[in-house]
Amino acid sequence: MKTTSDIQAHATEVIARCQMLAGFSEDSAGTRRTFLCPSMRDCHREITRWLQALGSEVTIDAVGNLRGLYRATTPEAPRLLIGSHLDTVPNAGAYDGVLGVLLAIALLEGLEGKRLPFAIEVIGFSEEEGVRFGTPFIGSRALVGRLDADLLRRRGENGISVREAIVNFGLDPERIPQTALMEGQTLGYVEFHIEQGPVLESLGRPLAVVEAITGQTRLEFKFIGRANHAGTTPMNLRHDAVAAAAEWISAVERTAQAEPGLVATVGRIEARPGAVNVIAGEACATLDVRHRSDEVRERAVGDITQHAEAIASRRGLSVRQNRLMEQKAVAMDPFLVSQIKSAIRAAGCEPHDMASGAGHDAMILAEKVPAGMIFLRTPGGISHDPAESVEPGDVAKAIECGLHLLDQLASSSEFQAGFRTGFQRRIDRA
Amino acid sequence: MKTTSDIQAHATEVIARCQMLAGFSEDSAGTRRTFLCPSMRDCHREITRWLQALGSEVTIDAVGNLRGLYRATTPEAPRLLIGSHLDTVPNAGAYDGVLGVLLAIALLEGLEGKRLPFAIEVIGFSEEEGVRFGTPFIGSRALVGRLDADLLRRRGENGISVREAIVNFGLDPERIPQTALMEGQTLGYVEFHIEQGPVLESLGRPLAVVEAITGQTRLEFKFIGRANHAGTTPMNLRHDAVAAAAEWISAVERTAQAEPGLVATVGRIEARPGAVNVIAGEACATLDVRHRSDEVRERAVGDITQHAEAIASRRGLSVRQNRLMEQKAVAMDPFLVSQIKSAIRAAGCEPHDMASGAGHDAMILAEKVPAGMIFLRTPGGISHDPAESVEPGDVAKAIECGLHLLDQLASSSEFQAGFRTGFQRRIDRA
Repeated sequence: MKTTSDIQAHATEVIARCQMLAGFSEDSAGTRRTFLCPSMRDCHREITRWLQALGSEVTIDAVGNLRGLYRATTPEAPRLLIGSHLDTVPNAGAYDGVLGVLLAIALLEGLEGKRLPFAIEVIGFSEEEGVRFGTPFIGSRALVGRLDADLLRRRGENGISVREAIVNFGLDPERIPQTALMEGQTLGYVEFHIEQGPVLESLGRPLAVVEAITGQTRLEFKFIGRANHAGTTPMNLRHDAVAAAAEWISAVERTAQAEPGLVATVGRIEARPGAVNVIAGEACATLDVRHRSDEVRERAVGDITQHAEAIASRRGLSVRQNRLMEQKAVAMDPFLVSQIKSAIRAAGCEPHDMASGAGHDAMILAEKVPAGMIFLRTPGGISHDPAESVEPGDVAKAIECGLHLLDQLASSSEFQAGFRTGFQRRIDRA
Repeated sequence: MKTTSDIQAHATEVIARCQMLAGFSEDSAGTRRTFLCPSMRDCHREITRWLQALGSEVTIDAVGNLRGLYRATTPEAPRLLIGSHLDTVPNAGAYDGVLGVLLAIALLEGLEGKRLPFAIEVIGFSEEEGVRFGTPFIGSRALVGRLDADLLRRRGENGISVREAIVNFGLDPERIPQTALMEGQTLGYVEFHIEQGPVLESLGRPLAVVEAITGQTRLEFKFIGRANHAGTTPMNLRHDAVAAAAEWISAVERTAQAEPGLVATVGRIEARPGAVNVIAGEACATLDVRHRSDEVRERAVGDITQHAEAIASRRGLSVRQNRLMEQKAVAMDPFLVSQIKSAIRAAGCEPHDMASGAGHDAMILAEKVPAGMIFLRTPGGISHDPAESVEPGDVAKAIECGLHLLDQLASSSEFQAGFRTGFQRRIDRA
């Protein structure tokens, strides 16, 4: 194992490199680096340089994922994928996604040329945020064989399709099938990512192991009452859509507060006609519900829908519901979860077990291979903002944890046998 | 007194004339007839014809009010003003405003040439709704001397000022001072208007006497919390501006329900950033509070403000308040109110005493002269909509009530003496 001061130096370099890459942006407001934009090329150039210096072979695959292979002791050995995404939201910070790729590079540096019984493929996904084409996970979808013709035809704001964006970047869309993970070749996927929430900070812990990515339901509720004059309509003769929606929003909040781990959010609300002196005839509000258990989430959505109907009916309104999104929870691989916990402990930290409320590439990879995730504490829970930050000490702990994890996996017989079986099972099920 | 079938015939004609005038519109979507628009000229032409046929002298004053003088028994006698406004909102119905002018003409018809000890001036105000210049009551403000240089300079959407609109209509803005009511010349103002609310319909009564125009407070509340990821922020670590606003809206509703005659409305609400998967960092909501008692209204606004502050503070948010409008309640003249009540009873109806939650020209006239208002039942409470309607039987009752009122006033000694004194008092106070 490396010395503490070595690791601290690596952590400092990881942060400096993240900040440097944040300079490669489509515009000057914070960082904006969407799928296959010109500044992604600058990003690839620097990362390639760092990976080649560590003896890795770097390629850009047909959807623009950067892939750096660090060979194993034997040429035919399968590989462990470690990485995250290189694209960003508009006005982004420097760490969301990029940190996971830079930590993977830091782990290779930490190996100091030592080879393991498995290869390590550092991966920098080309697209996770869904900004350019309104569809997230383009990079990781290609690896699980889910980048289909429909998605390739999809057009972004400037009329360019996904396929055209790939061609314009100098890549060959015909080679997309070859980007998919091959049977028996991949042992698993490990992703480091900032938490993007306040939980670790509130607990005073640097690292968490992600046990599951929560399922999500997104709905739109429209309360339909009767628009009326705010001055001439007595309170008892109103069918006020805003008052109904307000009562319901409080019920949404109470429902979520009553169930551990459940989150429910009304992020958008609009009243029509929306005039100061007119009782609203319509109120539209969105609902976002997440929980690691699909059963708990579905029951909560049912309860919240019943609240909406009861409130509307008691007030002489009607309510309509429109489903925007439905996504089941995805469990991380139990073996990797337990190995990550041990590695966090070996780094001298108490691991926090949590569900990720946000989607990640690990959720997509988990369709085909065992996947595991480690969260780093996010100061103030601030993300998707230039103020996004990480603590150097936490980055050092993440490197330490990652090196322990590689050690554990290199000496695990389950890793050589069971993982491969797990991969086969997933391939068969898909 | 005229026979019932005569009055019913008059009522039918009043409705037919309202519908005919509704055809004079700036556009083809319902009726739209704003201050001094070309279709106002068509409206003036028809009304002038009807008034001249009844022996009235018609003029259009310097702000475009139509004024038809029906002489008294003596040339020097003061006058009673009866009327309402001729402008409309966009996509309007046929009765809001216009009905009050047509009922005044029906009363002259009902007199069948008989002269009273006071003159009757039928008035059709040029502007009450505030559509063209965003400022209501331009017509009636001129009569109380409140149409100042600032208002004349105000520009509408197409860049034309109030003064230019007056000149373009062929009128002389230099003559505006002469439109003002002169000392001792005016005995009072009586206005018939549709209720524009559901109260009379819910009580099964055709007519109401208006005792006061409610005061109004309009405020904007901004709840400021913290925008955060809807998936990664647990319920107990949120500062959700929409949830705070929702709790407050329910408190607004409870406050109004607890006080008879109080109305409080949140007609507009907006969340920022307003995304389905982001906890709102800001929520802006408007508040409209009305009551006939200024004391009750001000206390309610105080309570509602305290609720906002308590809710924000308990949730770790802040709240800011911005005053959009503050208008005191205006009492109608007690003598006229009691005379109107007797007249409604003489027409065979039970008068309902109520406050008007909407502003009317009578509110402006009351600054200088005794003012009284009669409301007609509004089917479904529907107004400011092409579906606006009146019951022919209710219009007949309004004509009957108006004729009784003229009879009563013509034989009242208080009317000759007290009213004039009342006018003087108001002039002195102003």
